[in-house]
Amino acid sequence: MKIHCEKEALLKSINIALRAVPVRTTMPILNCLYLQAFDNVISLSANDMELAIRTEIIGEVIEEGSLALDAKILSDIVRHLPDAMVTLETEEGDRVVIRCEQAVFHISYQTGEDFPELPEVERRNHIALSSFTLKEMVRQTIFAISDTGTNRMMTGELFEVKENRLRMVALDGHRISIRTVNLEESYDAVKVVIPGKTLNEISRVISGEADDIVTLFFTENHVVFEFDDTTVVSRLIEGEYFRIDQMLSNDYETKLCVNRRELAGCIERASLLVRESDKKPVIIRVEDGSMQLSLKSVLGSLREVIPVEKTGRDILIGFNPRFLQDVLRVVDDETITIYMVNPKAPCFIRNEAAGYNYLVLPVNFGAGDVD
Amino acid sequence: MKIHCEKEALLKSINIALRAVPVRTTMPILNCLYLQAFDNVISLSANDMELAIRTEIIGEVIEEGSLALDAKILSDIVRHLPDAMVTLETEEGDRVVIRCEQAVFHISYQTGEDFPELPEVERRNHIALSSFTLKEMVRQTIFAISDTGTNRMMTGELFEVKENRLRMVALDGHRISIRTVNLEESYDAVKVVIPGKTLNEISRVISGEADDIVTLFFTENHVVFEFDDTTVVSRLIEGEYFRIDQMLSNDYETKLCVNRRELAGCIERASLLVRESDKKPVIIRVEDGSMQLSLKSVLGSLREVIPVEKTGRDILIGFNPRFLQDVLRVVDDETITIYMVNPKAPCFIRNEAAGYNYLVLPVNFGAGDVD
Repeated sequence: MKIHCEKEALLKSINIALRAVPVRTTMPILNCLYLQAFDNVISLSANDMELAIRTEIIGEVIEEGSLALDAKILSDIVRHLPDAMVTLETEEGDRVVIRCEQAVFHISYQTGEDFPELPEVERRNHIALSSFTLKEMVRQTIFAISDTGTNRMMTGELFEVKENRLRMVALDGHRISIRTVNLEESYDAVKVVIPGKTLNEISRVISGEADDIVTLFFTENHVVFEFDDTTVVSRLIEGEYFRIDQMLSNDYETKLCVNRRELAGCIERASLLVRESDKKPVIIRVEDGSMQLSLKSVLGSLREVIPVEKTGRDILIGFNPRFLQDVLRVVDDETITIYMVNPKAPCFIRNEAAGYNYLVLPVNFGAGDVD
Repeated sequence: MKIHCEKEALLKSINIALRAVPVRTTMPILNCLYLQAFDNVISLSANDMELAIRTEIIGEVIEEGSLALDAKILSDIVRHLPDAMVTLETEEGDRVVIRCEQAVFHISYQTGEDFPELPEVERRNHIALSSFTLKEMVRQTIFAISDTGTNRMMTGELFEVKENRLRMVALDGHRISIRTVNLEESYDAVKVVIPGKTLNEISRVISGEADDIVTLFFTENHVVFEFDDTTVVSRLIEGEYFRIDQMLSNDYETKLCVNRRELAGCIERASLLVRESDKKPVIIRVEDGSMQLSLKSVLGSLREVIPVEKTGRDILIGFNPRFLQDVLRVVDDETITIYMVNPKAPCFIRNEAAGYNYLVLPVNFGAGDVD
């Protein structure tokens, strides 16, 4: 095999493929990137058996062939080459020569015969959306998935397509994040659960530009993401997702409009007094025109009052400050609306026009938690 | 005690004083910042018993007093306050109130009676130099100190003043870094060894601006740094420093002028093939007009030729690539000059006009290391 390409193009592809190289594996071949050069197309693949990535490199195939190279060594070397043309060529024996200007590297390679290629997935049901929208929707929901893995379904996100509407849902038993968006066209119905890890990796490799399109194909067991010169195939989480619609409600007793930054700053300050081991609630007392937040812990206490626009009843309610923080960090609106029923019932931070709905369960608190 | 100051001023002082709060200590009071407000001066101190810092805060003393506050809690809180005026006031009991706009924190404090104040140090011998020069000189030498601590003297840097000349020296048994600078005036002779940790912390808190002056006072056991509103007192390392002048030589058999970036890039690439556990030398073969660097390890090999201007004999010599890298990273010259004698003798990277001299010992290598 012999190929010729620009360092930057090669490095860009390596950085994409690296996302599917496992941190630990019992199959040594998975630590490699698999390079293929046929029919004037150079491609680079990686596969951790859950997630597989194949990306094309713009370059010239001088001699066809394929080989597998240790991902870490290859990426280290290419990252440190001068910005110039790179030639990669197999030698007699098991060595490959990487040449760039005056630098000549020799490293050993494997044939890659045992490299698990990307699963063949039938491309039938699909949707298309902008890279920007996909990246934003993942960012605005993924914090609510559970990473403990005691319930596998909670480690993924629901992707639900109905006509021209895409809904993404993440939950962990204490909260639910929902984002919906209108797609340009109507599509066949889809309801699948994509692993959180896949969505994290996708977010890192897609451009995030509004003008770039990502196409998703769904089958019973796989989802395929296609964008630019890259294909990502991931397994789905099998089984039925939680019935979330019955957990959602539009009824409320108290409705608050509050400045997001002010509330976020205040909850961040309250969190400073919370040690990991000692979960303390932030207590919110809502009265006409004002919202008092307070938190008491062994380290000290904070009390802060911020102005709100209130409709409905006064309320005294406690929350895990982190759950509110997580929502306030990802919402873009300057003013947010919070809907509450009573101190035991879920509260909602919601804006239907903007396509988001966050459910957060309150927590119990005792007289000692109130300042 | 009651004080009133701007959040930014308070935070700046906290960030300086924090440098002397120990990471681990058996004396709980050392985890505190000691706040004093007397005679219209507010100051903040920290002390890890090696290094002590006292810095003044611009603000208003409303009620005199002093107290000690947990450094981590105080810095976390102040960092997250709105950019506004902060009031800090003791309450009945052992609590202090921190108010900033609508936020009201209560945290517990200690009287700080047991806080070890800064050592009283006689200010006699001194030198003054620009903050920029001090920061640069530390950066350009400190990498050569030993951090293993088997030889305590190697964990510090020699500061030697003779008339208007300051020389700083660091060494670890494999290499020596020397920087000299002409001071504005002549001073009394000084020869002290300052702990590397002190120099690292000083580098972080001084401005690094050419117009700012740092004054150093030396006694038998201490060095004092004074700048802006801050005083740093550090113990010295006691004992006699190594006699380095007898290790330095101006004789050479081979003299090379080479582009620093080219050489640095090449050595960085060679280092990619070196695993921690498997120290491999970079072999340099110097012939007329060219320098070939090569390195061979279990991971592969690199060979690269770069142009040089050579005077004197050809040479084949091996180095620990990291020791060359460390020097090439801190030197500012575009072209550097390297002096070599033979493959067993120290090599020097030196520019007397620029005030630097780096000694690096070569390493032995076998036929198997040469590509």
